[in-house]
Amino acid sequence: MKGLPGFRDFYPEPIPTADSWSLDLRRHIFDTWRGTAERYGFREYDGPPIEELELYTKKSGDEIVGQLYNFTDKGSRNVSLRPEMTPTLARMAAAHTRNYKKPIKWFSIPQLFRYERQQKGRLREHFQLNADIIGEENLAADAELIALLIDTLRNLKLTSDDFVVRLSSRHAWQDFFENSSAHEKDVCDFYQIIDKLDREDPIVSGEKLAKLGFSLEQVNDFIESGQATDELAAIIGNIEARGLGDFIKVDYQIIRGLAYYTGPVYEAFDKRGKFRAIAGGGRYDHLVKLVSGGKTDLPALGFGMGDVVLAELLKDRGLVPPLGQALDAFVQITDESLRNASLSLVQQLRQAGQATEYPLLRAKPDKQLKRALELKAKWLVTLDNANQAHIKNLGTREEQTVPLVDVASALQD
Amino acid sequence: MKGLPGFRDFYPEPIPTADSWSLDLRRHIFDTWRGTAERYGFREYDGPPIEELELYTKKSGDEIVGQLYNFTDKGSRNVSLRPEMTPTLARMAAAHTRNYKKPIKWFSIPQLFRYERQQKGRLREHFQLNADIIGEENLAADAELIALLIDTLRNLKLTSDDFVVRLSSRHAWQDFFENSSAHEKDVCDFYQIIDKLDREDPIVSGEKLAKLGFSLEQVNDFIESGQATDELAAIIGNIEARGLGDFIKVDYQIIRGLAYYTGPVYEAFDKRGKFRAIAGGGRYDHLVKLVSGGKTDLPALGFGMGDVVLAELLKDRGLVPPLGQALDAFVQITDESLRNASLSLVQQLRQAGQATEYPLLRAKPDKQLKRALELKAKWLVTLDNANQAHIKNLGTREEQTVPLVDVASALQD
Repeated sequence: MKGLPGFRDFYPEPIPTADSWSLDLRRHIFDTWRGTAERYGFREYDGPPIEELELYTKKSGDEIVGQLYNFTDKGSRNVSLRPEMTPTLARMAAAHTRNYKKPIKWFSIPQLFRYERQQKGRLREHFQLNADIIGEENLAADAELIALLIDTLRNLKLTSDDFVVRLSSRHAWQDFFENSSAHEKDVCDFYQIIDKLDREDPIVSGEKLAKLGFSLEQVNDFIESGQATDELAAIIGNIEARGLGDFIKVDYQIIRGLAYYTGPVYEAFDKRGKFRAIAGGGRYDHLVKLVSGGKTDLPALGFGMGDVVLAELLKDRGLVPPLGQALDAFVQITDESLRNASLSLVQQLRQAGQATEYPLLRAKPDKQLKRALELKAKWLVTLDNANQAHIKNLGTREEQTVPLVDVASALQD
Repeated sequence: MKGLPGFRDFYPEPIPTADSWSLDLRRHIFDTWRGTAERYGFREYDGPPIEELELYTKKSGDEIVGQLYNFTDKGSRNVSLRPEMTPTLARMAAAHTRNYKKPIKWFSIPQLFRYERQQKGRLREHFQLNADIIGEENLAADAELIALLIDTLRNLKLTSDDFVVRLSSRHAWQDFFENSSAHEKDVCDFYQIIDKLDREDPIVSGEKLAKLGFSLEQVNDFIESGQATDELAAIIGNIEARGLGDFIKVDYQIIRGLAYYTGPVYEAFDKRGKFRAIAGGGRYDHLVKLVSGGKTDLPALGFGMGDVVLAELLKDRGLVPPLGQALDAFVQITDESLRNASLSLVQQLRQAGQATEYPLLRAKPDKQLKRALELKAKWLVTLDNANQAHIKNLGTREEQTVPLVDVASALQD
């Protein structure tokens, strides 16, 4: 039997085929996500992988259903595997907002799901770092979040030669829109056209814009001006103060497709243009109120960063670190009468925090040594008798003989 | 809006209500699971949370469907959220068994799902540590796995006063069964009756046994004899050699409900009898062959340990460690003209691996200090000017003044 199409199996290194997904690479990414977020004072949360369908349609309209992994459960509920984390976050925050000091700085690493019928070979799930700040309307929060995004990628060894955050704002586009003769009701359609500018035929985009009362030239002029508004200048100034100015630039082509953004928006891009956006986010000040049915009204902002594009990018740039098993100690058993004493030693080493292996069954010494080397063990430990062990550092080839009780401490070096 | 019934939200500490689930406690459990498994040389894998329904019915029969969170997807596939990890493991191992040295020692921490219609207030999901060994028929593998189970619980600070592993074997029961006049075809029904002995009315059990040709007395005598077979004595001897003998005993009442077990089986129990089984597992030598359609035939064994009972047990025994945010540094900003320099310092500290917070907005010094204490910051750092910082250890109250460039190293102490 096979797994379902669009779902990944994650194997331990060494991965069985070149296109297998590596659990160890995933761990490297997750650990970096988690470690960076925590250094920024963000706290981890998680919600269910399934929610009521309405949580998503409420926010994004019924059109979203065509992209969702939704179904009817055994209790006749309309439910969906989560396509994104923000609605769950808004639901959770709204339910217990009084218990947490504002601003709330939270992150999560959910697996997210999509099901579009016409997919061929496309993944139906991915993991995403979601970092959000709830309860702060000041731009200092937007800057803090963008700095986290940048540092997360930097901690994966990506540099300003690899990526840049393209910063824009719904406010800037709103001003542009309101300074025209266009109708307020068309603003969402207008944002959609801008969002697709780089993917759509310019003639098509031009025709669509004309219907709303704009020319493509007028729009392109605004994008090319690239002049930071006071809002964006404040964010960039904050980022520059952290020494991260090389990682950000104003780019009005960014507008983000989703309807719910209300302020600054941004996406992180591969500078060589080989991959889709690495991450994206922005401010969504009305969503908590919407999801809580008006009960809780808190400004909020966040970004998401997926594992699939990131893994491909790291591979492309040669930034995947050495992965796989690296044992501390391999306890050799050359004399089967010492097996029980050796088991006791194994226990002692593991108890002391050393990743330790040993031959489950009787085996020739050269086979055991080979296995120790395969497992990249740092130390080869062999009992001489019930009270004394021989230790060999397999890297430096240094050897020593120590009393049994001192083995664990001898391996601390 | 609320989450779906039976699904948990995990909040960061401090959790909003006493019955909220804590992400930090979950992390403590996961970290211990992962750390212990890796010290035992087990390697992490993961599979999809959804599989074809057939993967489960093939193994457990169609009756299992009544307990599954199954549904029809948009491509008209019969699928199910995973109720257990073993079928996925068998599928993954069978697909690439040649790429890995035997025995394969793998673990995973999947979220698992059940949907029984008549549930009231019962959880529909939980997380589970799954550890398995594939490709080794020797009992040394069973002992290695049981030792891991014991040490995982010990690393959560549970002692031999708290739990015991009750060890049994399908082989012992098979011998018992075959030494009677019962029919081979009834063996699975027989195991089911034994599995339910401690939950079912003895009269009912007695009647059921009589139909197969056994008396309840005969069965109880065998259980009470508690005499270790050679097989079980070998496992216990191995566990004793590791100094873990206090944590295990023979108990033939254990048989495990699932049909697919083929050898030693065991469950870990709370010694005070307040909770359901903490963990359970055994040998299932035919499953890989079954799942691979006969292509791969490898002996295998494994156990599962759920997070729900474990969390309750740890709380009951007062073994939940201090949880929640514990910041390294809080950078105070008392002079707004030093905000940019302070942001640069924040960046420097985070870069050096320190979890660091600062006031996003202008705030009074006493409010900032209060916040630093709430966040359990170890250090309070304040710039005196653009080149010099004042550092206070909030625990010892020691203070020092250092040049700006030395702040990060001063906090390493």
